Amino acid sequence: MNKSSVKELLQSDKFLQEVQVNGWVRTFRGNRFIALNDGSSINNIQCVVDFENLDDALLKRINTGTAVNIKGTLVESQGKGQSVEVQVSELNILGDSNPEEYPIQPKKHSLEFLRKNAHLRIRTSTFSAVMRLRSALAFAIHKYFQENGFNYVHTPIITGSDAEGAGEMFRVTNFKQNQAPLNDNGEVDFSQDFFGKETNLTVSGQLEAETYAMALGKVYTFGPTFRAENSNTTRHLAEFWMVEPEVAFNDLDANMDLSEDFIKFVIQYVLDNCADDLAFLDNRLAQEEKSKPQAERSKLGLIEKLKFVVENNFKRVSYTEAIDILRDCKPNKKKKFQFLIDEWGGRFTIGTRTLFS
Amino acid sequence: MNKSSVKELLQSDKFLQEVQVNGWVRTFRGNRFIALNDGSSINNIQCVVDFENLDDALLKRINTGTAVNIKGTLVESQGKGQSVEVQVSELNILGDSNPEEYPIQPKKHSLEFLRKNAHLRIRTSTFSAVMRLRSALAFAIHKYFQENGFNYVHTPIITGSDAEGAGEMFRVTNFKQNQAPLNDNGEVDFSQDFFGKETNLTVSGQLEAETYAMALGKVYTFGPTFRAENSNTTRHLAEFWMVEPEVAFNDLDANMDLSEDFIKFVIQYVLDNCADDLAFLDNRLAQEEKSKPQAERSKLGLIEKLKFVVENNFKRVSYTEAIDILRDCKPNKKKKFQFLIDEWGGRFTIGTRTLFS
Repeated sequence: MNKSSVKELLQSDKFLQEVQVNGWVRTFRGNRFIALNDGSSINNIQCVVDFENLDDALLKRINTGTAVNIKGTLVESQGKGQSVEVQVSELNILGDSNPEEYPIQPKKHSLEFLRKNAHLRIRTSTFSAVMRLRSALAFAIHKYFQENGFNYVHTPIITGSDAEGAGEMFRVTNFKQNQAPLNDNGEVDFSQDFFGKETNLTVSGQLEAETYAMALGKVYTFGPTFRAENSNTTRHLAEFWMVEPEVAFNDLDANMDLSEDFIKFVIQYVLDNCADDLAFLDNRLAQEEKSKPQAERSKLGLIEKLKFVVENNFKRVSYTEAIDILRDCKPNKKKKFQFLIDEWGGRFTIGTRTLFS
Repeated sequence: MNKSSVKELLQSDKFLQEVQVNGWVRTFRGNRFIALNDGSSINNIQCVVDFENLDDALLKRINTGTAVNIKGTLVESQGKGQSVEVQVSELNILGDSNPEEYPIQPKKHSLEFLRKNAHLRIRTSTFSAVMRLRSALAFAIHKYFQENGFNYVHTPIITGSDAEGAGEMFRVTNFKQNQAPLNDNGEVDFSQDFFGKETNLTVSGQLEAETYAMALGKVYTFGPTFRAENSNTTRHLAEFWMVEPEVAFNDLDANMDLSEDFIKFVIQYVLDNCADDLAFLDNRLAQEEKSKPQAERSKLGLIEKLKFVVENNFKRVSYTEAIDILRDCKPNKKKKFQFLIDEWGGRFTIGTRTLFS
């Protein structure tokens, strides 16, 4: 008998057929109802155990986190909240979960707690939804560019050049720290390091992507990028994945068209392909909004916001108009810009990191 | 008038229509025939210039490598070797190319020469074909996994762990070389480095991928990986992109099914989508084979080899059978294995690097 994923079973209408599914127990209620998840969907499949015919010792091993193999019959569910369920005919424990030790219990965990249990946090609904969305977004990025004649380029991660002067760099070396050989001037002799010179982790693949665009016409990069700035804010990451398209012969209008079309495509892709995960996060965020004062609540829900982006044309403004907008958009009058970006000719930086002090 | 790519024009049958195309001149014959390429295809579009009505000074600027904008009429070609061509009505130079300095001339260049001109080598037919294939293969890898329920995971590049002990690692640091602070024992105080400990470039995303597979069920990584071994052979790379799938609950047979299905899918994808590039490389390799003695020539051409993989079942052998095969497969009697891998229980390593001395 072929194994099915939870997602396949939830979408199936082949009732009264024998099925087999592997997964992890999310909850086990009343010695009867197993909510089983295998990561294929935010939703669980309900598996109904005939506890009178199951060994007591086996029943006691069915805990949150237990890995099980279940065989049974797919039936229309009589209960609320699901359309199908599995009537269990055989249950095998593949991996035990000790309820005294297993940290991901069916209750609300703080993000701080989950950070300390990073290897298991993906078993929570929130993290699994986010990671499935991240995967779908990454694929949508590739799909968009490939369908529009772009070639994917893997630019070097270890580099001897400092593209853009975009930020502080991590050094990559084969030397032992504090034991590098010196040259005649008493300086570190990087000619003896692995690549024969000082090397760093890349801050941008743009330089190499441009040389490829000058031959292949339309290219994009999508790979890890690094910043060694010691800035522990929510706006800073030491390691992140960046997308950089480069198109030969594009003018500014064509670049703006590309940006807008690209953003809309990837958002539409997850609206089409990750509806369950988005609905879960939409609902979760709506609950959090309710705890805020009325005036601070977001006017649009998550899915509404995404649809708003897809369904509207992007406003295109000149630099001068942008300055005017910045003058008007300070979140409140007490805040000041850290740099004078709201004056014509003032400092202008990529991203939002330096916008507000 | 919308711009078209060379690939679009070559596939078009909209004759007698006005078209516009940008690209780089590959060759310019008899003051009349421009072979134009924009990287969208291995093939050029022939653009026919009416030299009697063009300014002499302009004609002289049309050299190999010159970037041009061409407007004209798409017509059925009268010449051999192409089905369509553009009768040029207007030609604008977007970027000059000095024939005294531009290194990629229409002749055969050695790979060594192209290595020294790496920023321009993608303008050659061979490199552009290889890079378009690489891009298509990368996308096929994503497409295969996404269509089969896998989630893409970006595992950390900078890591404090040594997965598998798979090889020597590059160290990543924010310390200045030879100027790191010491602790009370006179050792380098890595607690003061960027991440508060000694960190390296990853040799494998497997450890993190496994934790994700234990929650999302089916995951894959596809990202850069590093080896700091100072081994300058054709089998060693300091930086390379690696694919690592991890599936919860898979047994060995399921893993072998996955490997075979995956390999066949990505090869079939390029056979279907990169026929022109493969035909070019097939032809190029066939020419090289002809220069070899009859006995050393490959029996199958490139495309035949790829079809052979797709159209046949993979042989699955036990470890014991593999040892027997290794005993029989030494390429010639003079060669010996560097390690005793052709004896039961002998050293076994990942990849082919240590197979032959």
